[in-house]
Amino acid sequence: MDYLKIFAPATVANVSCGFDSLGFAVDAVGDEMTFTKTAEKGVKITNITGADLTYNIDENAASAVVKKILKDANADFGIALTIHKGFAPGSGLGSSAASAAGAAFGANQLVGNIYSDLELTKFAMFGEEVACGSAIADNVSAAIYGGFVLVRSYDPLEIIKLPVPGELRVVAIHPQIEIKTKDARDVLPIEIPLKDAVTQWANVGGLISGLYTDNYNLISNSLVDIIVEPARKPLIPFFDDVKNAAIKAGALGAGISGSGPTIFALCKGDEIAEKVYKSIKESYQNTGIDFEMFISKINPEGIRIKNSY
Amino acid sequence: MDYLKIFAPATVANVSCGFDSLGFAVDAVGDEMTFTKTAEKGVKITNITGADLTYNIDENAASAVVKKILKDANADFGIALTIHKGFAPGSGLGSSAASAAGAAFGANQLVGNIYSDLELTKFAMFGEEVACGSAIADNVSAAIYGGFVLVRSYDPLEIIKLPVPGELRVVAIHPQIEIKTKDARDVLPIEIPLKDAVTQWANVGGLISGLYTDNYNLISNSLVDIIVEPARKPLIPFFDDVKNAAIKAGALGAGISGSGPTIFALCKGDEIAEKVYKSIKESYQNTGIDFEMFISKINPEGIRIKNSY
Repeated sequence: MDYLKIFAPATVANVSCGFDSLGFAVDAVGDEMTFTKTAEKGVKITNITGADLTYNIDENAASAVVKKILKDANADFGIALTIHKGFAPGSGLGSSAASAAGAAFGANQLVGNIYSDLELTKFAMFGEEVACGSAIADNVSAAIYGGFVLVRSYDPLEIIKLPVPGELRVVAIHPQIEIKTKDARDVLPIEIPLKDAVTQWANVGGLISGLYTDNYNLISNSLVDIIVEPARKPLIPFFDDVKNAAIKAGALGAGISGSGPTIFALCKGDEIAEKVYKSIKESYQNTGIDFEMFISKINPEGIRIKNSY
Repeated sequence: MDYLKIFAPATVANVSCGFDSLGFAVDAVGDEMTFTKTAEKGVKITNITGADLTYNIDENAASAVVKKILKDANADFGIALTIHKGFAPGSGLGSSAASAAGAAFGANQLVGNIYSDLELTKFAMFGEEVACGSAIADNVSAAIYGGFVLVRSYDPLEIIKLPVPGELRVVAIHPQIEIKTKDARDVLPIEIPLKDAVTQWANVGGLISGLYTDNYNLISNSLVDIIVEPARKPLIPFFDDVKNAAIKAGALGAGISGSGPTIFALCKGDEIAEKVYKSIKESYQNTGIDFEMFISKINPEGIRIKNSY
């Protein structure tokens, strides 16, 4: 293979109760990346569109990952990279994760498909570290594995792919405001009541059980975050209005995507998802804050190849 | 139906990572209870064997539950109750829960089987409150539903029955020491680091995922409790020795059953369970503390009818 064009999905991490543990991949929104073999060794970025990202090889999440893989695989060729961002960095939808995971996936294809999904996740985590300063796994593993994932453990890294009920849809709204990652981390409590932790892990258990059994009612009951959402929602203007609009229109639940500001709602079926989309849109229309929205299936397969030769 | 004899199983609550949320029913150990219709209204206890429990109707968990059900069902008859305890109160194996759950199940049969498992759990929780001062659901729901259960929520009460991988076995050792419930509660932290809570709920997610997929390796990796076990194990002499002996002999994991002092180990298959049994036994033989042990399948059905007419 000399050339590869891929789609690397946006991802929703945390998923209400599952802070730093759960994530899922979006189907309708993501980046496009191309990988072209070059005789010259090493990696170069030939084009970035859709967002203003660095071309510095060691500071760009995608190129940093490609460089690492080329070295690890001892490749006797190089890779020229293009990145088209399909969604905004800083949205809370795993922008750097899509780049990093896409880079790991694409480079792996060109070096002969020698790495497992777990290994690709580790490479992509390096990209997260380059971009965000910490090697978080939830977004990148969701992008690579597809569907819902559980980051069971970091040491050793263990990623569990969870099933996706077929009628599950996600509606998301991205208010065009900036939340600094540092601010989103700073509002988190260092310690939490054991009692609240029990409530939270019972909900994690309920959500995962609901995914295995297509039990939308249980999924809905479990999409509750009593720890992180209360701390972070003041950073997102009109969060409660959006959430209430979503629930009122029939969403199973709603919460903050990653560290925000995107708010996601999970829904059963296209019809309800359309209603939820409209309801959220109406709730934000007169806030004076610009926003983007999408409706999507859950992406079951993760990164996909669009073209190759 | 005028007479009923039932088996009400011992139960293991918490199951390492799932403090106050997870439980499972044991197959080999439990109480026997009989329920006989009487023309005279109300409940009486005609015999208690196997343990020294109160005959006071309102203070005995079983009779208190029967009384409540007879009243709720507006029964025009009474019930005479016998209780044979098959395992010791204060063991951490849900002794009061077996009595309370058994009472709810048995009384329901005699009033015409009108209550759901969820309603029976609520009645049994009243028995727990009578016996222990708090209406805890994990042991009673495990006894009533059988298999593994998740207490997803208390308000409203939601119990999720989880699948049981067929080769799962439990080995347990009950050191003959007393742990006061108050002491077991007092050593618990009020607050815990958010970081540890994340680790714990990722393990809850992993354990539940492992149960759904018969993934013994994942079950093993997830049977970790970094919050409650470290706080409580000093109350149980030689806990670490038992746990190490179990793991060394091939157990998937080991932990404190409920609030102890019983230590349980989960194993894959009879052969390993036998080895774990022997290994734990050897580890405790020279401690100078008396102990009882058992090996058991997971009880998939909960309380069962042994005889009726």
